[in-house]
Amino acid sequence: MRVLVLGGDGYLGWPTALHLSDAGHEVAVLDNFARRQYDHEMGVQSLVPIEPLQVRLDAWAEVSGKRLPSYVGDLCDAEFVNATLREFEPDSIVHFAEQRSAPYSMIDRKHAVYTQQNNVVGTLNLLFAIAEINPDIHLVKLGTMGEYGTPNIDIEEGWLEVEHNGRKDRMLYPKKPGSFYHLSKVHDSHNMEFSCRIWGLRATDLNQGVVYGQETPQTARDPRLATRFDYDAIFGTVLNRFVIQSVLGHPLTVYGAGGQTRGMIDIRDTAECIRLAVENPAERGEFRVFNQITEWMSVAEIAKTVANLSPRPVEVENLTNPRVEEVSHYYNVVHTGLPALGLEPHLLSDTLIQSLFGIAEEYASRVDLAAMRPTVQWRSTASKMRS
Amino acid sequence: MRVLVLGGDGYLGWPTALHLSDAGHEVAVLDNFARRQYDHEMGVQSLVPIEPLQVRLDAWAEVSGKRLPSYVGDLCDAEFVNATLREFEPDSIVHFAEQRSAPYSMIDRKHAVYTQQNNVVGTLNLLFAIAEINPDIHLVKLGTMGEYGTPNIDIEEGWLEVEHNGRKDRMLYPKKPGSFYHLSKVHDSHNMEFSCRIWGLRATDLNQGVVYGQETPQTARDPRLATRFDYDAIFGTVLNRFVIQSVLGHPLTVYGAGGQTRGMIDIRDTAECIRLAVENPAERGEFRVFNQITEWMSVAEIAKTVANLSPRPVEVENLTNPRVEEVSHYYNVVHTGLPALGLEPHLLSDTLIQSLFGIAEEYASRVDLAAMRPTVQWRSTASKMRS
Repeated sequence: MRVLVLGGDGYLGWPTALHLSDAGHEVAVLDNFARRQYDHEMGVQSLVPIEPLQVRLDAWAEVSGKRLPSYVGDLCDAEFVNATLREFEPDSIVHFAEQRSAPYSMIDRKHAVYTQQNNVVGTLNLLFAIAEINPDIHLVKLGTMGEYGTPNIDIEEGWLEVEHNGRKDRMLYPKKPGSFYHLSKVHDSHNMEFSCRIWGLRATDLNQGVVYGQETPQTARDPRLATRFDYDAIFGTVLNRFVIQSVLGHPLTVYGAGGQTRGMIDIRDTAECIRLAVENPAERGEFRVFNQITEWMSVAEIAKTVANLSPRPVEVENLTNPRVEEVSHYYNVVHTGLPALGLEPHLLSDTLIQSLFGIAEEYASRVDLAAMRPTVQWRSTASKMRS
Repeated sequence: MRVLVLGGDGYLGWPTALHLSDAGHEVAVLDNFARRQYDHEMGVQSLVPIEPLQVRLDAWAEVSGKRLPSYVGDLCDAEFVNATLREFEPDSIVHFAEQRSAPYSMIDRKHAVYTQQNNVVGTLNLLFAIAEINPDIHLVKLGTMGEYGTPNIDIEEGWLEVEHNGRKDRMLYPKKPGSFYHLSKVHDSHNMEFSCRIWGLRATDLNQGVVYGQETPQTARDPRLATRFDYDAIFGTVLNRFVIQSVLGHPLTVYGAGGQTRGMIDIRDTAECIRLAVENPAERGEFRVFNQITEWMSVAEIAKTVANLSPRPVEVENLTNPRVEEVSHYYNVVHTGLPALGLEPHLLSDTLIQSLFGIAEEYASRVDLAAMRPTVQWRSTASKMRS
């Protein structure tokens, strides 16, 4: 199949593009390099050095014999979106191309507005382009488990059978997200469901958990193929941060008591989930939702797991939680859709964490300790960032 | 109380500002005249001639002795929003200032993007301004009954007690709206609920039905105080259009068989609902939702009601429905919140329709027949508008 990967230069977009290419698909990547720009803005960088997109593409061509076309531009530019779809003629579009950090969206008004405008308008442009150019294109869109929040009932896959006053309906699962970023994805989901309903589009919304890991079989084939490894408080995710803190012998910084639970997934499984979604498209008119996680743990449990395997003795430091979230809560997530398509999960194992320790050791000299301290306060409308 | 009415030059914002002023509040209006601009863009106009805002304000000063300050600018301009809040120091903000036509949002990509960007960013700016300047300000925001769509269960007031697999939660009512405009209001509601949660704001979301009528006790005091009366297929609402068709002896244009049901409310009750919400604010941190309707009817029933009272014999013409909606559906709406605060509804009565016939007769020569035919097709991504 012809697959266009939006955000194909990013942490997950890049390894996913390679995984799809390796699986025999005709892949193109699209990116506007916004993610690299955020690094400059925030004064942070990936722990593992990454090459410019063209070098990556050259390296992949060398090791695989496949040259992936690239499209450089912004989804908020509708003309560019339309031109790209007309030229590449994808069967499937994988959409990672959104601002994806909750803390980034909570810095201040400008970052909140940017996040919602960028994500919602980009996706709207894409929906219109698909409807106009080829409504048969399958849209595989990255959502987030954070859209659901922490309801006191089981989290179903996007839809909920509701019984109320003796009547029934199948309704969109009610969402209560925890940041302006997560809200942008809720808005996207509503816009997508509507587009499927009125234009008969086919869409898969993948509500992804926190991703951990940095290497896939494809990126391992050449150092130039490495993907990002973010550990800073804005773009880093919790397990990656704990690994680096362990390697440095620094306390693992848990927000609050750590009772908040996160759905999680290995980076290799993320790429595989997307392959499965692409190869098993939604029906015309169907808004299909999968919860893209393989397990869940409380933040305190994640810290304990990492600490137990740490090469150096480390303690846990409980910071005042900068977010507004439940201290502890019910969490039970249905995630049967992707296994039903064939996903065989890599669960968080000693081996994986050991390999992450290796990466962190290798690049320990690049760590910017200050970047790991949370600066964005959810209750503030304008957080003081480090200068 | 000091009340700032956003969109205070519009169909409902203007009479609401007068109603609040008449009730003894210190009122200011804010507008960017976008609604007047849409008239030029679409080549339509209000059936009843309306005066420029300054003339309206002069007239109200003459008849009431009260001079309402006006702020001219755009909610998407955050500096303007902040400056206005700092200067006027409202206790309550009534927010009508959004693009409010479903067909307008469905014309094409540009109008869809404009609607969502304008509405969502404007409201985000407002939420940040309130949180920064005075989180005690009560936001009274106009939503729409169209946010709910037509679920097969009772429509509650914004929240739903869900029982699922033996567990319970109070969740935001799941929504399935029918246009990019209605979606923009769903996005707003999610952003507002979150802002109440993290910043302790107080907000009332009023999910308003289709408004009918043109006169209020305040606007009746001087012809210069008249509010708009829209009957065109983009901005006109169904009952107003039927009244004009009746007066002209033209067939009443029902979309499809007319089985689709609409919650409705008299313009005088809209203004009163807002007064009640303003005078009985939500608690700090509370996201309160009321369904602002007093009754509901199917479109076929509305046509029949108007036809029976018509000064001339009229027929019903069933047009192919340009929208995508259920042909017939369950519809039962809880709307007890506003009556509990003291609302005494004006139900759709012969008298009201007779008074509308009078208005339509008076201005019959201004009617643009072509403007009443639907041009915007929901299933199309780019509707052909008349040139």
